[in-house]
Amino acid sequence: MDQTHDPSLRSWVEGADSHADFPIQNLPLGVFSPRGGSPRAGVAIGELVLDLGAAGLEVPVPLNDFLAQGAAARRELRARVSALLASGATPRPEWLHRQADCRMHLPARIGDYTDFYVGIHHAVAAGRLFRPDNPLLPNYKHIPVGYHGRASSVVPSGTAIRRPNGQRARPEGPSFGPAERLDFELELGFWVGPGNEMGEPIPVAHASEHIAGYCLLNDWSARDIQGWEYQPLGPFLGKSFGTTISPWIITPEALEPFRTPQDPREPGDPKPLPYLWDEADQRGGALSLELEAFLITPSLREKGMAPHRITLSHARHLYWTPAQMVAHHSSNGCNLQPGDLIGTGTVSGPDRSGYASLMEVTSGGREPLALASGETRTFLQDGDEIVLAARARREGAVPIGFGPCVGRVTPALA
Amino acid sequence: MDQTHDPSLRSWVEGADSHADFPIQNLPLGVFSPRGGSPRAGVAIGELVLDLGAAGLEVPVPLNDFLAQGAAARRELRARVSALLASGATPRPEWLHRQADCRMHLPARIGDYTDFYVGIHHAVAAGRLFRPDNPLLPNYKHIPVGYHGRASSVVPSGTAIRRPNGQRARPEGPSFGPAERLDFELELGFWVGPGNEMGEPIPVAHASEHIAGYCLLNDWSARDIQGWEYQPLGPFLGKSFGTTISPWIITPEALEPFRTPQDPREPGDPKPLPYLWDEADQRGGALSLELEAFLITPSLREKGMAPHRITLSHARHLYWTPAQMVAHHSSNGCNLQPGDLIGTGTVSGPDRSGYASLMEVTSGGREPLALASGETRTFLQDGDEIVLAARARREGAVPIGFGPCVGRVTPALA
Repeated sequence: MDQTHDPSLRSWVEGADSHADFPIQNLPLGVFSPRGGSPRAGVAIGELVLDLGAAGLEVPVPLNDFLAQGAAARRELRARVSALLASGATPRPEWLHRQADCRMHLPARIGDYTDFYVGIHHAVAAGRLFRPDNPLLPNYKHIPVGYHGRASSVVPSGTAIRRPNGQRARPEGPSFGPAERLDFELELGFWVGPGNEMGEPIPVAHASEHIAGYCLLNDWSARDIQGWEYQPLGPFLGKSFGTTISPWIITPEALEPFRTPQDPREPGDPKPLPYLWDEADQRGGALSLELEAFLITPSLREKGMAPHRITLSHARHLYWTPAQMVAHHSSNGCNLQPGDLIGTGTVSGPDRSGYASLMEVTSGGREPLALASGETRTFLQDGDEIVLAARARREGAVPIGFGPCVGRVTPALA
Repeated sequence: MDQTHDPSLRSWVEGADSHADFPIQNLPLGVFSPRGGSPRAGVAIGELVLDLGAAGLEVPVPLNDFLAQGAAARRELRARVSALLASGATPRPEWLHRQADCRMHLPARIGDYTDFYVGIHHAVAAGRLFRPDNPLLPNYKHIPVGYHGRASSVVPSGTAIRRPNGQRARPEGPSFGPAERLDFELELGFWVGPGNEMGEPIPVAHASEHIAGYCLLNDWSARDIQGWEYQPLGPFLGKSFGTTISPWIITPEALEPFRTPQDPREPGDPKPLPYLWDEADQRGGALSLELEAFLITPSLREKGMAPHRITLSHARHLYWTPAQMVAHHSSNGCNLQPGDLIGTGTVSGPDRSGYASLMEVTSGGREPLALASGETRTFLQDGDEIVLAARARREGAVPIGFGPCVGRVTPALA
């Protein structure tokens, strides 16, 4: 581990050292527009953002070409940014903007977006709603189950999410109208770096070299639309109306201190096939990452009450590592490209405190959630806001966060 | 209908008037590289291609920005190209290249690729393999069923398709290796033109304005990989190793004479919900288009024997029109973008002569196909080639075709 992780490292940027998400040990990449300015590459530091071009470290936007360069280019940039922002370097406040004054964009042009389903407790909880005695399908512990998502409607944190209209099953036949069972899903996302040529799979031992960074991902889901449409080809309009991501790319370099062994398997679980199995990945391919989801209703907001924490979960509940997902995804020759986005699927914990969607928390809408404002919720109402957060912690390391992933529900079109 | 469709119109380009696919009444758009040259926009005419830039009609490539301009720009270009190539205009052979000397590219950068499942006879035949008594699921006649496909591995005709490796179910547990049940699917594809902003659905009455043109699409499918992986989220690696399309965009203008009423419904079928129903679309939203699939094996090739026609089908077997698919796809607010590709799903006819995949033709591999070379096939072997073709015909109109959609299977990686 290089000195950019040194816990004693401090920054001249005011407030950065005590910042929960963006101390100098993090240095995530993003694309921002300052007020009245055009989109450009930046690095978050405390409540501020460093304009890389102003600092003489121009990176073209969107970041696809930079992500394509892989770890060496990221490490070099990280070392230079760390040196510029460290205590002892000449303070250059003119290179900084307040994040609150900036607009964040998607960091890269997303070619394809794939969503996996490797949060095993979510798969069990969702499966139990349909198959109480046999919630996990036979393939689950052999294969990182995933599907293609919709890339065009992936939006950065803060973008309003309009409640979708769609077909909802009714006893008298389907009717078309606003989704009544609108839900969120708390997921970890990651960005593809160099990628592979079509027909040339990425071996699992090299898969981590193709992961350029991480984000939070809210896979908004209209359960009623989804339930009626999804047979036999899987989710479509119940998901494609919008997917929110946190806009900062948290690099593998920043997460190095938070690597942890992959061990979600129970005794008796099958050993993964060789194309999915790498000893180094098993030793350090998972992440020690707390994941949270909060609900803010208009009433909580008006009364000045705290957001309601729905979920406290952890990335250790992922049954497969990101490297295994990359190896599997490309194992048939499918080409992954720089800037592709991959979601893990809903990262639920084993019990209600860690359930990472309302479908799970409310047992399919049967057990409403009670809020301090006196309200209840089964599914999301107009004006409700979901905030996702992630925090990497470990003894002896400075904790870092991902920054928020926020979306507010606006009313359906009449 | 304007005079670019006039059946008496002739071209000065040798062989164009008798060309099965590309007479002067067609004028499809594509992106080609002449030998030693860079990619550029062109129009197919007979066995040749007109370099639009050389003719003073430069269109930037890829064609996304041109597709975004919609029908007016296409009509204007069509009128000018028709005038330049018509008998009576000054012959300008220096603007032409032989197609045989050119390399074809994808005409547009594909943002998202969506595949529908609206060939009802295919849905019945595929469903029958799993549910003999109840092949169609309850949603089928209410909703154009579709799913997100993989955009990165869509390739132009002529690109080799490597047999994928993947997990195949075995009595003793899954094993990883070459797909043993490799199949094709004959589909019609179409390109999105202007598209919509996220949250702003396209009404069905305006949906046809967002279709920029058509192509053939071979949705290669590894049935053994697909069968094991697809529950519960649908097709993934069983499809994403490659999708072949014909590279010429057959415009809605060229297909105007071949519009036909939409009428695949049987007595008792539900009337589509209002957001999917438009009278004009019902009168002329479907296409009179013959669709064929041919198999060429190494043995047929060596013996100089004719390709084996597996399928003769017709676009009238699509249960929903392209406009209905566009309206449905965007009905939840999902944004469609210029250059997005949409497949219809496998366009099978009602009986074996029209079955548009080997899974259907061979009843899931149980009834091998006999070839004139003395060989049989259940699924595709290495070296086999699939050729798709489409022909629009109507009394009083000059027939046009789509040009071939070809792919040859190469051996799996060891």
